[in-house]
Amino acid sequence: MNSNSFKNIFEVSDYIFNMAAEAGACDEVPVASAVCTIDPDVLNNTDQNLNDFIHSFLRGEDLKGLKIIGKGTNQILDKKDPTAHGELTAIRDACKYQNSERLTNSFLITTLEPCIMCGGAVILSRLNSVLFFAPALKGIGMKTLLSQNPGQTHAFNHYPELHHLTEYENQASEMLRSFFRLKRTV
Amino acid sequence: MNSNSFKNIFEVSDYIFNMAAEAGACDEVPVASAVCTIDPDVLNNTDQNLNDFIHSFLRGEDLKGLKIIGKGTNQILDKKDPTAHGELTAIRDACKYQNSERLTNSFLITTLEPCIMCGGAVILSRLNSVLFFAPALKGIGMKTLLSQNPGQTHAFNHYPELHHLTEYENQASEMLRSFFRLKRTV
Repeated sequence: MNSNSFKNIFEVSDYIFNMAAEAGACDEVPVASAVCTIDPDVLNNTDQNLNDFIHSFLRGEDLKGLKIIGKGTNQILDKKDPTAHGELTAIRDACKYQNSERLTNSFLITTLEPCIMCGGAVILSRLNSVLFFAPALKGIGMKTLLSQNPGQTHAFNHYPELHHLTEYENQASEMLRSFFRLKRTV
Repeated sequence: MNSNSFKNIFEVSDYIFNMAAEAGACDEVPVASAVCTIDPDVLNNTDQNLNDFIHSFLRGEDLKGLKIIGKGTNQILDKKDPTAHGELTAIRDACKYQNSERLTNSFLITTLEPCIMCGGAVILSRLNSVLFFAPALKGIGMKTLLSQNPGQTHAFNHYPELHHLTEYENQASEMLRSFFRLKRTV
């Protein structure tokens, strides 16, 4: 994708909620994800690091240089590809944009906690942090994966920070619940 | 890929070892994977099920209808894609061949135990079994993932069988060790 400029978490969350709703309208599980970064020109001309920016983002502040550099929705049925989750697609999209297999200076925001596959992809891509809305639907997600294998065991060579954004949980979970409710009644 | 017919485990392991060596020659970590199946014409005209065929395969017997329907090597650097592991690529390739997001009637054979990301992709694709040569290099792999979250916990909605083919372990591990030895000395 081309990079898109955004002001704050409200704009970014609206954007991914809209993407998730569009996926749901196409009969895919309504999940959407975006890889965000801070423009290097901004990041390199301040004494703040990416974590400072992420904490401002989490507090709802306006950020200079905030961009979405990769996005994705669930497209498993459309692409006939079990790996076409929103997170994995967003990561691949961002890597293409950055022309790099590493996303060290970026973070992922996603309407649903990443599954094991996507959690693995987050670790491999060295994303700084993951911000998720709804916790894993059932079974284990990225939070359990990291807590089962804490940093000091060296189970992984990178430990991204996880942030569960509970203020968006209801909206994200309800979107998923109504999707599955509708599927059961059809 | 177009489907390729193979006779037995010796031919398939030669094939993936050759692919892994080619990846190594291109400076990628030498890992290769293939998704195998039994031709439905053969499978539907016998009283054996896929597990029976896999057990014959593991015993080194010749199998009728054995095919590779997806293959992949590590291409992280070439594709600038952290998700371009051999297993994930082979799964996507096989799904394209089958025109389906499910690989229920297939099994994966791979020179290295799948990582967490690829283990997740195996589960999502519903592959019947995973046959691997070398155990995970460091950190946790698919075996640990499944043993940390055993079947009765319903952590996952599918539990593929794992087979560690120890008779191929030395060759696969040595290929990896010499690759990294060379990298360190360059």
